[in-house]
Amino acid sequence: MTDKAETRLFVEQDLAAGQSLVLSEDHAHFLKNVLRLKEGDVVAFFNGRDGEWYGRVEAMGKRQATAVIDTQSRQQEAEADIWLVFAPIKRARIDFLIEKATELGASSLLPVMTRRTNVERMNLDRLQAHAVEAAEQSERLTVPLVHEPQSLDALMASWDSSRNLMLCDETGTAPPIAEALADAASGAWATLIGPEGGFAEDELDGLRKLPFVRPVSLGPRILRADTAAIVALAVLQALRGEGPRRRS
Amino acid sequence: MTDKAETRLFVEQDLAAGQSLVLSEDHAHFLKNVLRLKEGDVVAFFNGRDGEWYGRVEAMGKRQATAVIDTQSRQQEAEADIWLVFAPIKRARIDFLIEKATELGASSLLPVMTRRTNVERMNLDRLQAHAVEAAEQSERLTVPLVHEPQSLDALMASWDSSRNLMLCDETGTAPPIAEALADAASGAWATLIGPEGGFAEDELDGLRKLPFVRPVSLGPRILRADTAAIVALAVLQALRGEGPRRRS
Repeated sequence: MTDKAETRLFVEQDLAAGQSLVLSEDHAHFLKNVLRLKEGDVVAFFNGRDGEWYGRVEAMGKRQATAVIDTQSRQQEAEADIWLVFAPIKRARIDFLIEKATELGASSLLPVMTRRTNVERMNLDRLQAHAVEAAEQSERLTVPLVHEPQSLDALMASWDSSRNLMLCDETGTAPPIAEALADAASGAWATLIGPEGGFAEDELDGLRKLPFVRPVSLGPRILRADTAAIVALAVLQALRGEGPRRRS
Repeated sequence: MTDKAETRLFVEQDLAAGQSLVLSEDHAHFLKNVLRLKEGDVVAFFNGRDGEWYGRVEAMGKRQATAVIDTQSRQQEAEADIWLVFAPIKRARIDFLIEKATELGASSLLPVMTRRTNVERMNLDRLQAHAVEAAEQSERLTVPLVHEPQSLDALMASWDSSRNLMLCDETGTAPPIAEALADAASGAWATLIGPEGGFAEDELDGLRKLPFVRPVSLGPRILRADTAAIVALAVLQALRGEGPRRRS
């Protein structure tokens, strides 16, 4: 099968040659009414476990579509183990943050409640849908899971200390990020972004005392919370020395 | 004067002790109706030339306000000479890009038309206003200028070859960004971001032949144009070794 698939869809089902997939109503609508695909057209599928597979649209009904899986286009590969721990922010910015963190390869997205967090309700389904869409468009083979919110204290109390936690610290006392990560960018990481109002002073003091916390400075300007998250993930990935794209 | 100013405003006028400022209608509205400041309250002002100054609101009318400049709070400092050259993208994303590039210290914002650019009209006044607002909130002492759009060919023909141009290249042939910039992050730079559809093949070929162009890879995932711009600026700033904040 030589056709190149222009569209990638994330599905829950197992993927293997000859497998038949019943697509969700959303996917069926997207393929039929947005992309105007027809029976026989090629789509790529991934599920986070079995790599990426090409399949052909088999039947396209009003509210339902099926596809048959054909050949594997990419093998599943190990991905960076980088969590984003973030205090919820306002709606447009959190949607954006989820999209960018997914594009930048975050493996888990963990909302935490801090002293100054003033966004209380989050639609986790909507956030997870943004992560799926961003993964589909970025050629990732996985989708990061958006976790249930928890308190920062609870998360820190259960933290596996082999995972480094990058603390984006605006107080001017932390070393610049490139210096702080120069010898330590590999391994399991998380980056912690505070709320728009910043961490409370005693929260910062408590965090700095934890053995796995690495305070870093992101430069002399004040960054919004969403910008800080993107910068932290981008620089961490760059210093890990990610290679270029593996298919063109 | 010991009050700390919570608000920073960018103005065009000169700033010096004793100087009286007539504020714009927008600024007057913002101070009076949004922030609910009163006569005597302290605001910080910067103009891109004279550092940052504290001033006191002197009179607050319905549509007009004046302030008197008092003491200098920060001296003007040299900032990184980094341009962002970008093909216009859709409205919400371009607003976001301007905000983030300003936060990340871009000194000039240059829209360029490429072969596959499909956004033709841009409201430069709106984009410039976004840059002003982002500079006010990020504690920058300058505001990047949003230039008139021009063709990529024209910009390349007039390029000063002492300025490196980082080409974010998705074809898989360029070295990873941290490797490409390891010994070269200082000096004058620009980063070039293509449109959502990418550069045309012959555009890329032409760019790669220019002596000042440095192709870099931003990793194995496909990044949206706005993400690519933010990553390029963030990693460049990090590798230049920016110090932390100079005031807390």
